[in-house]
Amino acid sequence: MTSEHTVSAFDHELNELAVRIAQMGGLAEKILTDAVHAFDRRDEDLAHAVIDGDVRIDELEAEVEEQAVLLIARRQPMASDLREVMAAIRIAADLERIGDLAKNVAKRSLAIHTEAWPHKGVPGLDHMARMALEQLKDVLDAYTRRDIDRAVDVWHRDTELDAIYTSIFREMLTYMMEDPRNITFSTHLLFAAKNIERIGDHSTNIAETIHYLISGRPLRGPRPKSDQSSLTSVELGDKPSNIGRD
Amino acid sequence: MTSEHTVSAFDHELNELAVRIAQMGGLAEKILTDAVHAFDRRDEDLAHAVIDGDVRIDELEAEVEEQAVLLIARRQPMASDLREVMAAIRIAADLERIGDLAKNVAKRSLAIHTEAWPHKGVPGLDHMARMALEQLKDVLDAYTRRDIDRAVDVWHRDTELDAIYTSIFREMLTYMMEDPRNITFSTHLLFAAKNIERIGDHSTNIAETIHYLISGRPLRGPRPKSDQSSLTSVELGDKPSNIGRD
Repeated sequence: MTSEHTVSAFDHELNELAVRIAQMGGLAEKILTDAVHAFDRRDEDLAHAVIDGDVRIDELEAEVEEQAVLLIARRQPMASDLREVMAAIRIAADLERIGDLAKNVAKRSLAIHTEAWPHKGVPGLDHMARMALEQLKDVLDAYTRRDIDRAVDVWHRDTELDAIYTSIFREMLTYMMEDPRNITFSTHLLFAAKNIERIGDHSTNIAETIHYLISGRPLRGPRPKSDQSSLTSVELGDKPSNIGRD
Repeated sequence: MTSEHTVSAFDHELNELAVRIAQMGGLAEKILTDAVHAFDRRDEDLAHAVIDGDVRIDELEAEVEEQAVLLIARRQPMASDLREVMAAIRIAADLERIGDLAKNVAKRSLAIHTEAWPHKGVPGLDHMARMALEQLKDVLDAYTRRDIDRAVDVWHRDTELDAIYTSIFREMLTYMMEDPRNITFSTHLLFAAKNIERIGDHSTNIAETIHYLISGRPLRGPRPKSDQSSLTSVELGDKPSNIGRD
């Protein structure tokens, strides 16, 4: 009876952690979406809303960690129960970083809202943001359903996001070379795109955490990585039509 | 006797964690130094050595986390003992990220080793790297000595690193506008500088962890942040001599 009581109390506390992580996930999805809208539309108010919204994600992470540590100390979980608690701590940390990265995109939008930009929209960035949002939703779903296949699928998909980032990087360098008036905007856009690429990395981290949580084994194989932008250099006269399509 | 035995066994395992974290710290300091040299001297071999060196840091972090989780499960530490174990996990995670960021700087150096750069050296980057290295050494020292004042000092110093990064950001934008041939190099240098600025953020995280470890209380006050680059925009015709000095 006591043991049953203890077990159900442990499950109850685990569930409280899961609820907060679900809250963090929902907020992270929202501010990622809003941050990219703020960037596209040069919407200052929305950018400030994102910056404020990130504060709540940080608070929730602190709550998750505090509760998790208390739970370990009080219940002394072993094996898979302990993995559950450690996974909650790790996933909360990744969601907190995702919030910071979305906030950075919003901050960039404040820098460029007065900048001229001759090109129509920033399609590459929207595309990256949609993919990053999909990854995040799927990996949070995989966590809720304890769906290891879905987690592994998200893990593999990170290469697509990296590839688009690399092509945006090349494209922006050529825009800068075409016309110096593009430089400030392009530079901030590159950093915004890099932030979204890193959001994908954190969804990949979460996928690895879920795999370990469910299977007790780390996700095997080299981590997918195809952001080649750090190796990219563009020559004068290159046209975006020729490069940035890879 | 049994309890004494348990205590000393716990201390022995805690010490094993501390040894691995010291190894990680030493490696992180080394590859940060080497990464910036590789960037300055366009030294490809050194850059590849940094990229290889980061692998060992990743392995050590995995070992720290695995040992820490086993230790929690076996010894069921409470209060300050539990904080010790949680601190080890968190500091190892920050050192792993510092290794990744140094690796990114080394990768950037591979992209620019053929690029022309009319200006003498990259003084701003060296300066940032020296400060980031100082911060890292001091915060690891604060951890070893359990020196809370030293940790708080590192925490406050992060604003200096952010300020230099912002001035490099402005300076690079003007170089790009002066001559399109500077664009590729300047862009990679901006990302390299941003990586070093983020290394400072992780040393700041470690300082916060040490403060909590020793005092049991989170570090109060708003976190120092003065990287204004995400709000920076530069007009055509601005000269580095006029800006980038702030």
